This record gives sequence, C-alpha cells and structure tokens, in this order.
Amino acid sequence: MKILITGGAGFVGARLARELLKKGQLDGQTITELNIADIFPPPADLSADPRVRVHTGPLLNQAELFASGFDAVFHLASAVSGECELDFDLGLRSNLDSTRVLLDGLRKAGNAPRLVFASSVAVFGPDAANPLPDLVADNTLPSPQTSYGTHKLMCEYLIADYTRKGFIDGRSARLMTVTVRPGKPNGAASSFFSGIIREPLAGVETTCPVDPDVTHPVSSPANTVHGLITVFEASREAMGGRLALNLPGLNVRVGDMLQALEEVAGTQVRQRVRFERDERIAGIVANWARGSTAERALALGLRPDASFKAIIEQYIEDCQQPSYPADALRGLNH
Amino acid sequence: MKILITGGAGFVGARLARELLKKGQLDGQTITELNIADIFPPPADLSADPRVRVHTGPLLNQAELFASGFDAVFHLASAVSGECELDFDLGLRSNLDSTRVLLDGLRKAGNAPRLVFASSVAVFGPDAANPLPDLVADNTLPSPQTSYGTHKLMCEYLIADYTRKGFIDGRSARLMTVTVRPGKPNGAASSFFSGIIREPLAGVETTCPVDPDVTHPVSSPANTVHGLITVFEASREAMGGRLALNLPGLNVRVGDMLQALEEVAGTQVRQRVRFERDERIAGIVANWARGSTAERALALGLRPDASFKAIIEQYIEDCQQPSYPADALRGLNH
Repeated sequence: MKILITGGAGFVGARLARELLKKGQLDGQTITELNIADIFPPPADLSADPRVRVHTGPLLNQAELFASGFDAVFHLASAVSGECELDFDLGLRSNLDSTRVLLDGLRKAGNAPRLVFASSVAVFGPDAANPLPDLVADNTLPSPQTSYGTHKLMCEYLIADYTRKGFIDGRSARLMTVTVRPGKPNGAASSFFSGIIREPLAGVETTCPVDPDVTHPVSSPANTVHGLITVFEASREAMGGRLALNLPGLNVRVGDMLQALEEVAGTQVRQRVRFERDERIAGIVANWARGSTAERALALGLRPDASFKAIIEQYIEDCQQPSYPADALRGLNH
Repeated sequence: MKILITGGAGFVGARLARELLKKGQLDGQTITELNIADIFPPPADLSADPRVRVHTGPLLNQAELFASGFDAVFHLASAVSGECELDFDLGLRSNLDSTRVLLDGLRKAGNAPRLVFASSVAVFGPDAANPLPDLVADNTLPSPQTSYGTHKLMCEYLIADYTRKGFIDGRSARLMTVTVRPGKPNGAASSFFSGIIREPLAGVETTCPVDPDVTHPVSSPANTVHGLITVFEASREAMGGRLALNLPGLNVRVGDMLQALEEVAGTQVRQRVRFERDERIAGIVANWARGSTAERALALGLRPDASFKAIIEQYIEDCQQPSYPADALRGLNH
C-alpha cells in the first residue's frame, strides 16, 4: 500500500507517519511506501525509514507527485489560523489552491484513492443570525469566523463533490484543538492551549491570553492520530453519509486545565502561568466552539480523552521520546 | 454610481440591467455607468443605452476590469447545473475560479464595494446523515448534490470571509428556480420548469422529465430581480448577520403548474405536454429541495409570487416585449 501524508513533517502529520510505520499496515494492507509531502523536511527518524519518501516544497508544485497513484491519502497540510488572519493570500494559496492541486492530481491518477482530510472545529462560529450552540455537533450549521475555518469548510465541500463524482473516496475529520504540542508556539491562535501546559513544565514562565472561564474541545495528539486512522478505515456505510464529522473532543475549561496541571506537576509549575488578556487572541477564541459532540465518530468507536489530567500525563510520557526537546520537563525538577 | 453585473447578458442578468436602467438609481444613488461582463454580448437594447459598457469574454480574463473601482456588483455569471455535471473542469473554472478573480479584483480596488452574489437553492440536498426537511430554510444545513450547488456554497463562504475582512460588503441571495424563462432550453437540469409552460404556449409539443407529484420552489423573473435589488439595498443590520439567505419561493407541484397552464391558456395548450421520465434529470431533481421558506427575506419585505397562474400571466405579458421571441405565444392562437 502506497500512502501519502501531506503536512507529514508537522507535529500531527509526523506522529501519524510514525504510528502507521509502527503498525506496518493500514486497513489490513501492508504499507510498502509512505510519502511525506511538506514544505519542511520531516524529522530524521522518519527520513531514515526505508519505506519513507520525502517530497519537500510547496504542495502547489507537486501536481505530478499527486497524480502518481496513491492508495491512501491523509491531507493535513495547512497554513494555521493565525497565519491566515495575517496573510490572506497565503491562506488561500496554502489551504484552498493546494487542496485543488492535490485533488486534481488524485483524480488524474484515476484509481479513486481513499482520502482523509484534516478539517477543523474552526469551521464553526457564531454570527448574528445563528449563535453557536453550547456544543457544536456533526450537523451544526457551520459559520466560520476565520479564513482558516472558511478554507477548511470549502475544502470539505469540494472533497464531498470529488467523492460524489467518484474521483476519490474522501471523508473529512474535524480535528479538535490538539494539545499538548511540543516545541515552540506556532502561528495558530490556539497555540496557548499547549503553551500553558508545555512552558511551565519546561520551567518557563508564560501567559494565558484568555479568561479561565473559556471552555474549548481539545484532544491529545495520540487520540487525534487514532481518530484519523479510524476514519480512514471506516467503510462508506459506517460513515453514515459522506459529510464531514467531528472527532471527539474533551470539553474543558481553561481554569480546569491549570488545575489539572497543578495536580500532575505541583503548585510551583502551575504558578508559572499568569493570566494576561491578549485582545487579538481572545477575540478569535470568543468566536470558537465552547464544546463539541461527535455522535458519528462515537458510532465508529472513537472516544474523547478520559481527562485533561490524562492528556498532561501523555505529554509527560511523550517527552521521553527522542523527537521531543531534551529540556521539555526541566520545570518538573526545579 | 458605477455598477457591474457579471452574467449581465443572461436572462436574469439582462432583466436586472433593464430594471436598474429604468429606475435610474440604486440605493438612492444615480446610476452613471452600468458594466456588463459576460461570455456572450448582451441584447441590443442594453448595448444601445449610453450608460452601458460591454465587456465580452471569460470572467477569468477580466481581472483588470474588476479592479477598476465599482460601487455596486451583482455577480450572476455561472455555468449551470447540467453543464457542470457534464464538464467538471468547466464548472470549477466558471463558478469557483472566476469568482476568485472577481473578488480579488474588487479587493485590489480597495473601496469595499457592496456585492450581491446569486447563489442557489441547489446548495441544499439530502445525504444519508442529513435528509432534507420538507421546506429548506435559511439555516438548513447545506449538503449540495451537484457540482453547481457545491460551487455556489463555496462561493457563499468565500464571500462571507472577504466581507468579514472588510474587502467587500457581500451578501448571497439564494435564487429559487426562475420560471418562465424565454428562448431555448439551456443546460440547467431545471430547464424543464420553464419548458413545460413556454413550449406549449408557443405551440410546441414537449415532455416533462419528472413525475407530476414533484414539488419545487420557483420564482418569476420579475420577483427574482426585485429580490436581488432588495437584498442589495438592505443595510447590514437589516440583513441580520451576513450568511446567505433564501429568496422567497412559491412551492408548487408540477401537476399544479400544468393545471394553472390549462386555466390560463386552455386544454389544448396543456395537452402539448406529455410526461416522459428522463432518469438523468429526475435523479438530479430528486435531490433538490421540495419547497423552501425565506424568513430573513420576508423580514426585508420580500414575498413569493402570488400564484403559479400569476407567474404564467407575467410570462404572457412579458412576451409583448421586443426582447422576447416573436412567436412565443403562437400556441395561444391555434
């Protein structure tokens, strides 16, 4: 089986690649080739695997690669929300035009490969005519309030149409906010959802740009990758229609995230987070879902993470991996 | 006021142009220039008006025109549903890429013009997870079952995002099926909704490709044009949020359309329509809305046509216009 992961050098993409290489198979078929297309080169452990082929550069230039005949595609590559708000053209190019090039390549190949598109809970947002419900569901009317969410939603519908025409066998999994991400803050407005856990554990003081009462649906990296693979392996029938579905999220209050941090890592670690409202970030987050349900994902056997404490414990365990920064847990030993 | 109508040589576009030229003003401002951009040249009466400027050719080539600084834009140009099903690339190019070129031109001009996008009731459709309600409402979850509907929906969301960013002041009006259209059948799967009235009135035998029990929301040309102008003139506040809205439709059964034809034009005319199921057309129509509501358009003062009989009577009156075929009512005199 020949797999393509776009955005496979990113955090979720690389973790998905590792998981697939470890399993050695997908949907019952042996993985013979795993292609990673990303603007950045992937981590060294992935490049070193003899099954991995690396294609570094903008997706817009990869039309030939995309038409080369894949059996399975995970389309994760994306400019993130903060970037798209700052650079409108970059967002359209990276999220919409690149998806067009990918889909047209797959269509040209003619083998109707199965594709999972990483959509986002950011497709949901309030507007004057349609306030957001407390929990966004699979069939909540999307009304994105960011360019990022707009592009994700447009691609969901485009993928549904390519699927209806029989060019691909596509499905869209709406990722909840993935936390805890390692490394540096990125351009995503949701970056702080990882930062307020990661930084204090590393011994670094940080600020939380939103109020403690903000709630949000989150998912651990491991649970997110498990969700993407499960949605890939689901039959068309089990998908129950071909619209996008929500991956399960743990609906958690920012204040409770920090409470969990204190329980896992102690008061001293917790106290490295100071609330300092950032109007730009708070404004974006105010238009996001406060929680989610995932009826159709639950029917596929998926579940949210058990607790935010469990998410932090997973991060601490992950930090033993060579791909995580060596000083990621420095703050625990102070 | 400098106006642009894309698709201004088409039936609805030309009628909109005539109506605007007759009124001489839009939203209280005098119309000094009316630009018609269309792949076809407009009817002679429009070209002859000194306020009209004609730009014939694909919209994809009109980037410079679009950036030339319009105060008002009606974006009607589109490949129709049947065409898009037959030629996937044509659909993407005509409906999605052309809209991108238009929006980027308007953004480049920098004056945030008001824009009304002619979307369509075709954004609605059933899927296994979300059967269509009996009446599709402003906030029904769209699930288009044609490429045409998919592109219209994607453009609605793109226009909402350009509006959120302040590049334009956009709104999307979902047109119901416009009937009775003059002239020849076109590539739209909905073409028969006009054909079963127009052809028998012209003395021409015709077939109806769907069952008499099919119901559908329709609107007369005059009421549709009135809807587009009213949505243009509505304030942002009156729009009550910036999502698309349904224009009012008269929900009518195909059998009742023919009954109205008989009442207006007699049994002989009615008998020129024979039911002959076309599986391709019937399959497309089976996935369309069976009726609609238009809560937000009603709040703007818009109303559906009074009856289907009134729609036929409007067509017969329209046939006195020089822009209608000379033999359009030949069937009435037999």
